[in-house]
Amino acid sequence: MDEIKLIEIKEDIQADNALVAQELRDRLLREQTLMINLMSSPGSGKTSLLLRTIEALKDEISIGVIEADIDSVVDSEKIAETGIPSVQLRTGGFCHLDATMVKKGLDGLDNPSLDLVFIENVGNLVCPAEFDTGAIKDAMILSVPEGDDKPLKYPLMFTKANALVVNKIDYMQLSDFDTARLKSHVNRLNPDIALFEVSCKTGEGISQWTDWLKKTVAEFNGTAG
Amino acid sequence: MDEIKLIEIKEDIQADNALVAQELRDRLLREQTLMINLMSSPGSGKTSLLLRTIEALKDEISIGVIEADIDSVVDSEKIAETGIPSVQLRTGGFCHLDATMVKKGLDGLDNPSLDLVFIENVGNLVCPAEFDTGAIKDAMILSVPEGDDKPLKYPLMFTKANALVVNKIDYMQLSDFDTARLKSHVNRLNPDIALFEVSCKTGEGISQWTDWLKKTVAEFNGTAG
Repeated sequence: MDEIKLIEIKEDIQADNALVAQELRDRLLREQTLMINLMSSPGSGKTSLLLRTIEALKDEISIGVIEADIDSVVDSEKIAETGIPSVQLRTGGFCHLDATMVKKGLDGLDNPSLDLVFIENVGNLVCPAEFDTGAIKDAMILSVPEGDDKPLKYPLMFTKANALVVNKIDYMQLSDFDTARLKSHVNRLNPDIALFEVSCKTGEGISQWTDWLKKTVAEFNGTAG
Repeated sequence: MDEIKLIEIKEDIQADNALVAQELRDRLLREQTLMINLMSSPGSGKTSLLLRTIEALKDEISIGVIEADIDSVVDSEKIAETGIPSVQLRTGGFCHLDATMVKKGLDGLDNPSLDLVFIENVGNLVCPAEFDTGAIKDAMILSVPEGDDKPLKYPLMFTKANALVVNKIDYMQLSDFDTARLKSHVNRLNPDIALFEVSCKTGEGISQWTDWLKKTVAEFNGTAG
């Protein structure tokens, strides 16, 4: 494999993607829809966090979900059960979503009056961080069993995210995870990140996250439109 | 982004990679070195499993490690402390290793008499499964907190792996992870996979994994050379 050739291809793809992403963001501003791109490793709890979030907010805020999965519909079935508008993108092996795929998802929701749309990206700490999805905000989950050293090893996602949800704090008792050490690593990359400590299993900490979402939707509606 | 164009690029890269991978495998056969490509999500315990494995086997088998990391040297420092030959590949953002990168790692080890070389791939359940590294065997880790549904969502890696190490069984008491359900999902994809249940934290189950490694090295030495 010729390394220089690969980099050129990547730059072409990125330039095309950036254009589509900007068009998508312009549309979201017009439609006053806050779209949040939710990323994490496999099994960190993206779907569980969405289910908790929908449960807490669906009577106050109109929510939609664009689900991505390489090959299954496991997660989107759970989201569909909540009754909120949702679509499933099957990536067919792709390791991330780009703006064109997300645009198809937003078209599929076919509902320009939504206040808040979540993209559940492919479970992957690497590739999704490299592609602008067109979302207004990026959020990520790190679960306690993954370890507090992940910002050192996957720095781009921690640098890009506006919010970091530390999930599975109910595992803390069996783990040597050190939240102070995590914060120190994250602060060096991204001092402005909003950090939440939650357990999607017990519900602990979820209200701080949903309060931040309500505030962020309100601020966005104040600036958009 | 033009989807058809991207697929063509991917096929070109894959064809080039397959050639390099086959050359690498021919060399490993000549040198009688069993190279195992170890893959998992971020934080599943690749480095911890390697440390346990080195501790158990280093007096019987000569071992080397090719470490990959996007941007840090956290893991390779831990491996270097064991005193076994190791090299670090810094991928600079790449989400997987290909055969050319692995060849550079094997050249860097500069030791054709090793019995067993591990590649610690980038933490990612998607992309590493798509690229032939030139390894003789593929092994993967799934940790209990990630959940037993991962074969449904990341099928390619579970289909390709010769061995599956279920790590962090010490978390089982706090989890709804169901090993029978995992086995049922995996068996549909890959009935021949060797499955091990371990805790790198407590050492439980490690000897079954290292026994399999010893047997696999001995069988490979019987066929190679």
